[in-house]
Amino acid sequence: MEKDKPILIVGFAGSLRKASYNKMLLRTALELLPKNAKLEILDLEGLPLFNQDLEYDMPEVVKQFKNKIREADAILIATPEYNSSIPGVLKNALDWASRPYGDNSLDGKPVAIMSASVGMLGGARAQIHLRQILAALNAYVVNRPEVIVNFADEKFDANGNLKDKRARAFIEQLLENLVKLTYTLKAEVKS
Amino acid sequence: MEKDKPILIVGFAGSLRKASYNKMLLRTALELLPKNAKLEILDLEGLPLFNQDLEYDMPEVVKQFKNKIREADAILIATPEYNSSIPGVLKNALDWASRPYGDNSLDGKPVAIMSASVGMLGGARAQIHLRQILAALNAYVVNRPEVIVNFADEKFDANGNLKDKRARAFIEQLLENLVKLTYTLKAEVKS
Amino acid sequence: MEKDKPILIVGFAGSLRKASYNKMLLRTALELLPKNAKLEILDLEGLPLFNQDLEYDMPEVVKQFKNKIREADAILIATPEYNSSIPGVLKNALDWASRPYGDNSLDGKPVAIMSASVGMLGGARAQIHLRQILAALNAYVVNRPEVIVNFADEKFDANGNLKDKRARAFIEQLLENLVKLTYTLKAEVKS
Amino acid sequence: MEKDKPILIVGFAGSLRKASYNKMLLRTALELLPKNAKLEILDLEGLPLFNQDLEYDMPEVVKQFKNKIREADAILIATPEYNSSIPGVLKNALDWASRPYGDNSLDGKPVAIMSASVGMLGGARAQIHLRQILAALNAYVVNRPEVIVNFADEKFDANGNLKDKRARAFIEQLLENLVKLTYTLKAEVKS
Repeated sequence: MEKDKPILIVGFAGSLRKASYNKMLLRTALELLPKNAKLEILDLEGLPLFNQDLEYDMPEVVKQFKNKIREADAILIATPEYNSSIPGVLKNALDWASRPYGDNSLDGKPVAIMSASVGMLGGARAQIHLRQILAALNAYVVNRPEVIVNFADEKFDANGNLKDKRARAFIEQLLENLVKLTYTLKAEVKS
Repeated sequence: MEKDKPILIVGFAGSLRKASYNKMLLRTALELLPKNAKLEILDLEGLPLFNQDLEYDMPEVVKQFKNKIREADAILIATPEYNSSIPGVLKNALDWASRPYGDNSLDGKPVAIMSASVGMLGGARAQIHLRQILAALNAYVVNRPEVIVNFADEKFDANGNLKDKRARAFIEQLLENLVKLTYTLKAEVKS
Repeated sequence: MEKDKPILIVGFAGSLRKASYNKMLLRTALELLPKNAKLEILDLEGLPLFNQDLEYDMPEVVKQFKNKIREADAILIATPEYNSSIPGVLKNALDWASRPYGDNSLDGKPVAIMSASVGMLGGARAQIHLRQILAALNAYVVNRPEVIVNFADEKFDANGNLKDKRARAFIEQLLENLVKLTYTLKAEVKS
Repeated sequence: MEKDKPILIVGFAGSLRKASYNKMLLRTALELLPKNAKLEILDLEGLPLFNQDLEYDMPEVVKQFKNKIREADAILIATPEYNSSIPGVLKNALDWASRPYGDNSLDGKPVAIMSASVGMLGGARAQIHLRQILAALNAYVVNRPEVIVNFADEKFDANGNLKDKRARAFIEQLLENLVKLTYTLKAEVKS
């Protein structure tokens, strides 16, 4: 793959609420994208609960979600933390994305993760579960930097803009590393 | 609390599919209950995806689910493993159960967990996440025995009966330990 | 067990360094003990690396360590976080404590955990692993409060005293809850 | 990096006991190496317990261990499971390997992991912790195949040879994938 071919990143947040800080993180990513990357943001609203009885005849909305993931060069996930883990909403989307057996749309994808919460830990524990789930899905998760936006209510302004410069710099670096990993994984090994 | 007062256990499985092995585990529990315990089985079908914007005006079906949990003396969860974790369906139910802040219906509850899957690991990794989530919810999870039913397709018969004697004995012991922990947590400390 | 019988808590830190913040946490606990509890602090210095070939003929220092744990009514562990987990030093001590099969000195013990680190997350990730390990050891870990002392270099004074009032209040509450759980687990259920 | 340059893999097991099944896994890897790879096996015997007070003046044996890791193109770890996690012995070695700050010898290394145990789960839970720790160390862990050798006492013969053909095939594939990931991570992206 050549370095100047633009990378398509598909992003989604693990929260459905309108004023979600994690949706704001994704919008921040839009501002901080490397120039050779595009970001398309999806919404998990409307995905039904996963039911394995339906996996060979998935609802249309699920098919569309999976197609978006399949077409992406890389994935960006922003997650809140609910009860020391990722929300059921996010896990449910990943369950659909992975099924049925043999049709895992995240297979081999480079993924970057970030989290925001109003608490002190900023979603760090959710990231641990998410990373583990993504390894099970054979995705390649960017190791660093860890983008953990704690006390999120103090770091975004009333319009949903991330004011915190350190957090912005981390997100910028995360996106660069995601793009770099994407090129690396696609690079043909010279024999 | 007195030892002969019957314990009400509320149980649910993390899968929506009809022929779920984890639903079968719950039905097996019905057969193996200690005599001073009752088990009411709930279905997670029909719970909507959690949306924090709705947490102070929850859908009726969620209110009913939370009331059932609140009224229970103890909880029994049977979970499959999806992508090294619990299904989104189950996490979503626990998210509703825990919210809004200050109204966590699992607070202080004794809980027993078990898992079944067709694979070699039998859901052991899902149990790790589930245990961690339940600790965040301030539930008290029975430590032992670990009920991990692997190769589930070989251990249930065509009618959904668990044939495996060892697994049955483990479930029986788990239920006894759940009842015992329930009594213990309710016991008044003599001063 | 009667409420006025004093509880013996045995505590140890997961770090060997002299000026360890986690050792300071234990000394803070000494100041904040409920009046019906005593705390004896052990040092993990000098425990050899675990070798299963020696488990039926343990070194004397290991036997003494296990005896201290066995005699304790409750356990208090303070741990730093190394590489998103507990230090090898602490895990090694727990490995000795649990072996050989059938001679797990932590079996059934109530345990409280806390952590301190100079970083933003204060050891929260180490606590997750520790909690999981302790469940495997059939210990009963106090759920709340979570004592996570982040930015520890700003919260202790030059003499190792914890100045942060909020952290002190959390530790005091943790110790009370540990004592309460200890009484509860020992309470005889009236039949 | 060119595809025919041989890859140096450094491997170690998380157990000190002589007849360790995980040491046997490493010896099996020696038999199944891709032809463009070499494997050097280290022993963790003799590494002292980590003490941060010594991290700028490490014992000679630790320096040698870190040098071996630094010189390696890739790392192979075989771990038993103790109490649902990796042994303290292994974590202790990784703690040394990662310190002091700025001198993490595992930084950016490709790593493959495998586990063996006499139980049903074969070390699967230890692998979860290990994977998480390695992500914190900025290592790149091969996702698949998962090499989990359960009931290990039935799968090795009296001379320590792995008889189980399926497990052998998985190890062979794991090593191939490790070598492939190593080349990929070293590949220069063409601009």
